[in-house]
Amino acid sequence: MKLICTQENFKKAIFNSERVVSKQTTLLILNNILFEASKGSLCLSATNLEIGVVVKIGAKVENEGKITIPAKLISNFINNLPAGENISLEVAEQSLKVKSGASKAVIKGLSATDFPLIPRKNSEYQLNIPSETLKNILNKVIVSVAFNEMRPELTGVNLIFAEKELFFAATDSFRLTECRLSLQEKNINQDFYKALISKKGNIIIPATTIIELSRIITGQEEEVSIAIEEGQIFFSVAGTTLVSRLINGKYPDYKHIIPKEFKTRLVGEKSVLQGAVKMASIFTPSKTSEISLKIDQEEKKVFIGARSVEVGENSTELKLDITGPSQEVIFNSKYLLDGINTIGTNNVGLLINSGSTPVALKEINEQNGEVLEEYIYIVMPIKN
Amino acid sequence: MKLICTQENFKKAIFNSERVVSKQTTLLILNNILFEASKGSLCLSATNLEIGVVVKIGAKVENEGKITIPAKLISNFINNLPAGENISLEVAEQSLKVKSGASKAVIKGLSATDFPLIPRKNSEYQLNIPSETLKNILNKVIVSVAFNEMRPELTGVNLIFAEKELFFAATDSFRLTECRLSLQEKNINQDFYKALISKKGNIIIPATTIIELSRIITGQEEEVSIAIEEGQIFFSVAGTTLVSRLINGKYPDYKHIIPKEFKTRLVGEKSVLQGAVKMASIFTPSKTSEISLKIDQEEKKVFIGARSVEVGENSTELKLDITGPSQEVIFNSKYLLDGINTIGTNNVGLLINSGSTPVALKEINEQNGEVLEEYIYIVMPIKN
Repeated sequence: MKLICTQENFKKAIFNSERVVSKQTTLLILNNILFEASKGSLCLSATNLEIGVVVKIGAKVENEGKITIPAKLISNFINNLPAGENISLEVAEQSLKVKSGASKAVIKGLSATDFPLIPRKNSEYQLNIPSETLKNILNKVIVSVAFNEMRPELTGVNLIFAEKELFFAATDSFRLTECRLSLQEKNINQDFYKALISKKGNIIIPATTIIELSRIITGQEEEVSIAIEEGQIFFSVAGTTLVSRLINGKYPDYKHIIPKEFKTRLVGEKSVLQGAVKMASIFTPSKTSEISLKIDQEEKKVFIGARSVEVGENSTELKLDITGPSQEVIFNSKYLLDGINTIGTNNVGLLINSGSTPVALKEINEQNGEVLEEYIYIVMPIKN
Repeated sequence: MKLICTQENFKKAIFNSERVVSKQTTLLILNNILFEASKGSLCLSATNLEIGVVVKIGAKVENEGKITIPAKLISNFINNLPAGENISLEVAEQSLKVKSGASKAVIKGLSATDFPLIPRKNSEYQLNIPSETLKNILNKVIVSVAFNEMRPELTGVNLIFAEKELFFAATDSFRLTECRLSLQEKNINQDFYKALISKKGNIIIPATTIIELSRIITGQEEEVSIAIEEGQIFFSVAGTTLVSRLINGKYPDYKHIIPKEFKTRLVGEKSVLQGAVKMASIFTPSKTSEISLKIDQEEKKVFIGARSVEVGENSTELKLDITGPSQEVIFNSKYLLDGINTIGTNNVGLLINSGSTPVALKEINEQNGEVLEEYIYIVMPIKN
């Protein structure tokens, strides 16, 4: 193997593949990235046996060939290079010679023949999603994923394929996130998508895959392509392909938890609500993290506060836009704050029926002040 | 106690005092900040029994009085307040009522009578140092302080009072930092300073005190005043006084370690040297962290590199300004990099006699390229 490529492309390829690399030490080769040079391109592959990443970049290849190199080492080397100069790579005696500008290195590798196979996609991609839209959805939905391994299906994100829309959902049974994405016909491979809806209309993607995918998508790319095959999902974005196993199991049917209507609606600036909830969280009892939200319809005032025997109490008075009757709701401060943090608009809509039924957080249209329906964060109040 | 002060002053006072607060839980009151209101001012005091901080700010005091409040709590509260609004404080039933804008809180406290006394200064301040100059010196000298408690005197910074200059020095016996500060007569209280030189010309200040002092000095203040009394040192900067115990013991006489002359001088851009040393440090053997610096006078080239059996090898070729004979020196990569990092000028001067004698790093005058003598970082090579 002998080739030259740009430093920019090489850095990007290392960035996209290195994090997937396993941290385990029992199987040394999983700490490595596989480098494969073939006509006109260099392919980098990494896997932890759950997620695999393959990145293809353009290269001036003099000799084809392959080798595996410790991910951490090549990443450190590349990140300490001064920008600009091209990178030349050459395999010699189970080592990779790297040269760039005034710097050179010889890095010891392991034979490529022992590197595990990363599954390749057989079918076409079923659908394409604008990359920025998908990145936003992933960052929202990841918040509600459960970390408790007691219920493996809750440690992933539920993806539901419907006629003209996709739903991304996650819940740890204390709160629930759902994002709806309308699909445009031109972005769907009709034959494959119809088969997908009928056969595998409901899948669960591991949270680690969602996190890695969100990291790889910069939002500058045009779109992300998705395909699903036999317990696996493929994402392709600007030369990088990520493949992940799906989680076995049936995701709970969460739709019935979301109330159809709400009695009280509160609209307030995101930063103001964040500030008040953060401040109250300082004063919560250490065991319960309870904060209270009081909506006084007559006085047109909202109070957010907390009280604990140990430290004292606090309250912030806010003048927000209130519609509907007065309410008093007790929240877990973390769950409420997580929800507010994910809101992508300047204003947050809080929708409440009572202190003992699910409360919804939604985004608010900046122009007309109406509640947007694409994203919903549901949090269960703490019953008093 | 009842008063009003500006949020800006209050935040600054909390910032300057909170870090000194003890993290131990056996003596609860040491987790607290003492608030004392007297005519026209509010005083905040904190101590961990080694270092004490007293901050005085202006306040509109209605009632005098005092109380102690958990530092972490009041700090969290104040940092989550929206900027701008004044702060009103009032003591009621062993609690502090805090109000600012739309937010209010009641924080439980402990009686001020149990708060330990923080030593007060009896004499005048002996000398004043421009604050930015001192901050620079502190940040440089702290790097070489030993963390090993085997030799307590090395866990501090040695301050030597001479006729018209001060020396700040630190060493962990692998490297040594010395900063020289010329004193201007107008900044010295002559009577006290002369007594100081004769009596306590050589003291050791704990590293934690140096770190805290550097944090309190923003560099915007005009000057820092210093006084020394019976095993204690006082620093005063813009309304904040820090008092610390001194370390008992005799600091080693390090001056003879610093070579008077050097055979080879290398001058190079700081960022270039940093990059080359960082890159080499990736390839060092894990046990020794050895990197090599080769100066080839004939070729006018410098090579910085490392090699280890485990990972491979690297080398960076640099074209630097060389005076004097060729050299080859083995360094501990961390010690060399620490030294380069502390250099405050664009160019670093490396001064070498041989591969087995102390090597010096110095700053370089940007205008005329000459070596500056105020700051010296000495590192012992690893003998081969």
